[in-house]
Amino acid sequence: MLPNKITDLFKIKYPIIQAPMAGGITTEQLVAAVSNHGGLGMIGAGYMSSESLKTLIREVKKSTEQPFGVNVFVPDEFEVSQQDVNAAKQTLQPYQNELDIQQPEVQLPKVTDAFQTYHDQIQIIIDEKVPICSFTFGIPSKEMMEKLKQHGVTVVGTATTVKEAQEIEKLGMDAVVAQGSEAGGHRGNFLSQTEKSLIGTMSLVPQVADAVEIPVIAAGGIMDRRGLKASICLGALGVQMGTAFLTCVESGVHPLHKKTLLQSTEEETTLTRAFSGKWARGINNRYIQEMKKNEEKLPAFPVLNVLTQPIRKAAASQNKIEFMSLWSGQSPRLAKKQNVQELIKQIISDPEIIN
Amino acid sequence: MLPNKITDLFKIKYPIIQAPMAGGITTEQLVAAVSNHGGLGMIGAGYMSSESLKTLIREVKKSTEQPFGVNVFVPDEFEVSQQDVNAAKQTLQPYQNELDIQQPEVQLPKVTDAFQTYHDQIQIIIDEKVPICSFTFGIPSKEMMEKLKQHGVTVVGTATTVKEAQEIEKLGMDAVVAQGSEAGGHRGNFLSQTEKSLIGTMSLVPQVADAVEIPVIAAGGIMDRRGLKASICLGALGVQMGTAFLTCVESGVHPLHKKTLLQSTEEETTLTRAFSGKWARGINNRYIQEMKKNEEKLPAFPVLNVLTQPIRKAAASQNKIEFMSLWSGQSPRLAKKQNVQELIKQIISDPEIIN
Repeated sequence: MLPNKITDLFKIKYPIIQAPMAGGITTEQLVAAVSNHGGLGMIGAGYMSSESLKTLIREVKKSTEQPFGVNVFVPDEFEVSQQDVNAAKQTLQPYQNELDIQQPEVQLPKVTDAFQTYHDQIQIIIDEKVPICSFTFGIPSKEMMEKLKQHGVTVVGTATTVKEAQEIEKLGMDAVVAQGSEAGGHRGNFLSQTEKSLIGTMSLVPQVADAVEIPVIAAGGIMDRRGLKASICLGALGVQMGTAFLTCVESGVHPLHKKTLLQSTEEETTLTRAFSGKWARGINNRYIQEMKKNEEKLPAFPVLNVLTQPIRKAAASQNKIEFMSLWSGQSPRLAKKQNVQELIKQIISDPEIIN
Repeated sequence: MLPNKITDLFKIKYPIIQAPMAGGITTEQLVAAVSNHGGLGMIGAGYMSSESLKTLIREVKKSTEQPFGVNVFVPDEFEVSQQDVNAAKQTLQPYQNELDIQQPEVQLPKVTDAFQTYHDQIQIIIDEKVPICSFTFGIPSKEMMEKLKQHGVTVVGTATTVKEAQEIEKLGMDAVVAQGSEAGGHRGNFLSQTEKSLIGTMSLVPQVADAVEIPVIAAGGIMDRRGLKASICLGALGVQMGTAFLTCVESGVHPLHKKTLLQSTEEETTLTRAFSGKWARGINNRYIQEMKKNEEKLPAFPVLNVLTQPIRKAAASQNKIEFMSLWSGQSPRLAKKQNVQELIKQIISDPEIIN
């Protein structure tokens, strides 16, 4: 039997965490299926209003009695100049024309609103007695940590470097996700620069495991039994998998995103900040390629995310993958069209893991 | 007992291959120590004249009766315009001034010479009955493969993507090193663009293992027992380790390179083509940083390598690490000052591996 504090910590059967993918992917079907089959389902609350989050939590609760969690994005202070916004709008205009949508009247996000949403989300997690809360893009304040702990919430941080993992441990968080450079979607770095934080999972996990005493959850490139076993060899006590769950039938991802991923190779992902303002890994497409030359100049997260939302929305409804954010890790060849039960069954089919 | 065709293939005790680091690192002491302690020592013949290679092979033979190997760089066709060379010389001039060396009269490499050296190296490997030959930056021609096989040489390719691994298998090579993005030193990509070929070891190894039937050797970020075990879980049959052997007392690396590596963190490596003209991973320093803005414009490998040689040589003799190529993988925190015997002993201290 493998020593596994992660299963004890989260009160789950298998050390498999479904990555909290934001933007409508973590439907109640996906989250509940993962939890019902012995893993930890996670709601990606990034971008969600607190009301929508509350509704989704209640729906998940109707579908599972097992523990599940919510991930929140920690807001940054950001500056938004009208000049940068106008420049970005101009850069985005040709895509709006091509998609035949109007220049939308976007409500630019305010720092105070971002912090308000964040605090509201945390309050809902507490009120709804969600047992696990994980953080991306930063760590909570000491006060927020204390509040979560007082209410018995298990708190998990996301680190991309040893320094970030140490900060997470220092704050008293219960576990740390070590996100390797293979991971799809947003980079979770918050102390380290993005470029410096692109450490492969094979390198990151043992270096983090040596540096902290809290349980380490490996993330990045892990798709199956082999990845879980390897992660455990490297010193992790569990895994967080995104892309593998993204292509499951229960995920709320756009059908063409799923289809593209199932046909892609390891060479086709790239890093871009042209969708949200933060760096993220996805399948390269026309929008990413064309924006490469502008991407350093685009406004910060979450401003850019709001500005590109109409494009992404129209692209989704018009089935135009060339403008969608096709998040994917570096192992799309290992992605399968299957349901959550089949995926988890495959992973735990090794006696070393299930015993 | 683990199924291990790698140990049978190479007639070695443990599935541990010392990466063939070029540039004077793979001394006869290092290569022989690795082979004598049950791994596979490898001479990095890149940049070596065939005469020096012959001498080194003979020295290694005096120090070990165990199998060892030689790695060769496959030359590319390259173009060298006097204009680009002059521009590069101008870019490099301030460093020569600072190191107080003259603008050296460099003999620019010719494509024909590069191919001649390559063929001579292969001839020496055959003549000296070196049992194993591995290739980087490409694959041998069919004729060369046949010749090597006729002489009983075991032939190994280096791949950074699935496509490259498949090409290696198709040619009839005996095994493939899957080099993940964590790896230190030169990227071995030859069919895939560098940017697309930066696949983390956790992603690369299972995708390669699924795509080929020849044995896969994992490389990139592997430093200890954990890395070997994880690699085997991912579908590899052995590992190739560079950085871990680089800091061993037997390695011929510059003492300050070794010292720097032992004090570095995972955040400090970066990719650069400013030393040789090909992309390689090393500890970031002043030269790399300052050359970032020029690096896309610099001449191709091996022209740039020849042009920067006087700088690297002077930097080494003057102990100026700011101008040295401090190759390192992404796990420098796991590097130790130890001898080869201690390193191998640590790796095989797991009964699953030695049995």
